[in-house]
Amino acid sequence: MILTVTLNTALDITYTVDALVPHASHRVTDVAERPGGKGLNVARVLASLGHDTVVTGFAGGPTGDVLRGLLAPLPVRDALLPVAGTTRRTVAVIDAATGDTTQLNEPGPAITPAEWSAFLTAYDTLVRDARAVALCGSLPPGVPVGAYGELVRRARAASALVLLDTSGEPLRRGIAARPDLVKPNADELAQLTGSREPLRATRDARRRGAHAVVASLGPDGLLAVTPDGTWWAAPPAPVKGNPTGAGDSAVAGLLSALVEGLPWPDRLRRAVALSAATVPAPAAGEYDTRTYTELLGRVTVKEHAAAA
Amino acid sequence: MILTVTLNTALDITYTVDALVPHASHRVTDVAERPGGKGLNVARVLASLGHDTVVTGFAGGPTGDVLRGLLAPLPVRDALLPVAGTTRRTVAVIDAATGDTTQLNEPGPAITPAEWSAFLTAYDTLVRDARAVALCGSLPPGVPVGAYGELVRRARAASALVLLDTSGEPLRRGIAARPDLVKPNADELAQLTGSREPLRATRDARRRGAHAVVASLGPDGLLAVTPDGTWWAAPPAPVKGNPTGAGDSAVAGLLSALVEGLPWPDRLRRAVALSAATVPAPAAGEYDTRTYTELLGRVTVKEHAAAA
Repeated sequence: MILTVTLNTALDITYTVDALVPHASHRVTDVAERPGGKGLNVARVLASLGHDTVVTGFAGGPTGDVLRGLLAPLPVRDALLPVAGTTRRTVAVIDAATGDTTQLNEPGPAITPAEWSAFLTAYDTLVRDARAVALCGSLPPGVPVGAYGELVRRARAASALVLLDTSGEPLRRGIAARPDLVKPNADELAQLTGSREPLRATRDARRRGAHAVVASLGPDGLLAVTPDGTWWAAPPAPVKGNPTGAGDSAVAGLLSALVEGLPWPDRLRRAVALSAATVPAPAAGEYDTRTYTELLGRVTVKEHAAAA
Repeated sequence: MILTVTLNTALDITYTVDALVPHASHRVTDVAERPGGKGLNVARVLASLGHDTVVTGFAGGPTGDVLRGLLAPLPVRDALLPVAGTTRRTVAVIDAATGDTTQLNEPGPAITPAEWSAFLTAYDTLVRDARAVALCGSLPPGVPVGAYGELVRRARAASALVLLDTSGEPLRRGIAARPDLVKPNADELAQLTGSREPLRATRDARRRGAHAVVASLGPDGLLAVTPDGTWWAAPPAPVKGNPTGAGDSAVAGLLSALVEGLPWPDRLRRAVALSAATVPAPAAGEYDTRTYTELLGRVTVKEHAAAA
């Protein structure tokens, strides 16, 4: 099975309003709720690709209960740990007039040292059965900033492949523990390396410890710097819609293809096609299967000349 | 005891952000939750004035559970009816830079005919013990638009005093059932009567069926048109702060003084002082007791010459 870790799960709430006007009162015309957090989105895509998928992380309080209730009918196994704090909400306010989204993200619940320690014990058991682990998203308060480094080391000790998708200091610390793959976006890469030049920054990120780095560059596709070579992969044309969750779908594409033993160009084709097929889908963690199938054969993968 | 009815209760959520920028992503720096809906605010103020207070209306789903949990430690009796739907949330986003608030109000849960019928039965029992009833706020979907007319008639049949504080068609229908008191604000009065001239509009509202009408005119105070006379009542000076809940405190002031048998000028003094003392308080349903005590003797009450 594949394990996805979401330490800072969220109940994602989407409000539709006629038009968002700051400092005015709005009637919300539509309310939608879904289980959120990057690792849960990754898990949903992995499951729909046919992989046995387990999700872990923390869930607590009334919003944690709602999140687990929404997770129950989905084809992923819930191994979230209960905590005393309350799972955060995120509120996305969609302006129906323009289609633009305003995002409000609550801070996560405070995790106690005892809860973190209980998580590590449960994680050690879970990784023993995992072929691969995806470590995704931000850390809630109370979790040590070096948490992902610890989780990478424990997964590698259990011979599981590890992918890391986070940002800031947790990424910096996590990458040093030598994960198999990290997938920063352009902003995360710039924050890590100080460079906005994709090739230079991706190579720099890899030198920091990851076996391979795949940078997601929005509509420009993916840049992979790996022990086997360097590739650029891009969709045939930009896709219109909401890019939320496109990065999570890329992670699911990369990790599933890695587990299936596909070569790098095929991993990238799958990741780009899944990522692009997420854009026309209504929510993160979902993708348009028709767009995916259509794009899969049309993704351009170009190998970059060996580094100087 | 005094009964307050809140058919469309809400879990009021307040988010503080550094600055609200439409179509951007925001980290919420502070989250607060409180039991919401006008009748619950009125009840909290009534209870702090020393009145035995019971709240009824509907609560359902996970947000209804949270609301009831927040209500439990407060000195009001919870007689809310469980429903299958989910109690709505309201989200107030405070811009820390300007202090301005952007409000997002979810629609209420759909109430089934069986739930409405169960409410009427429970209400008949509650009003038998009530000296006064406050009917407050909007109607959730599924509740008949003439609901407040029905509730006014049933309260009057049980010899309870009835105050109505709502807007639009529910106000129009409710007022025709001859409540003892209605408390519209300037906008609600204009919507009901078509006039923005306070005296004319308040008199017009009274002719529609209410025994007395007290219009709340923001910082200008209250205008009361009653069988005993017409009065203007105003605070000595405007108070700085957040006016949310000021109208609910006025309702609590009027109703408590009515039950205590105070004459109109004293009812208005209390309502104006409570209303003004709510403005510096952090949340609706709360007031600054020092401001209240200080203002009580300094409210100006002027009788208006008899109508032509």
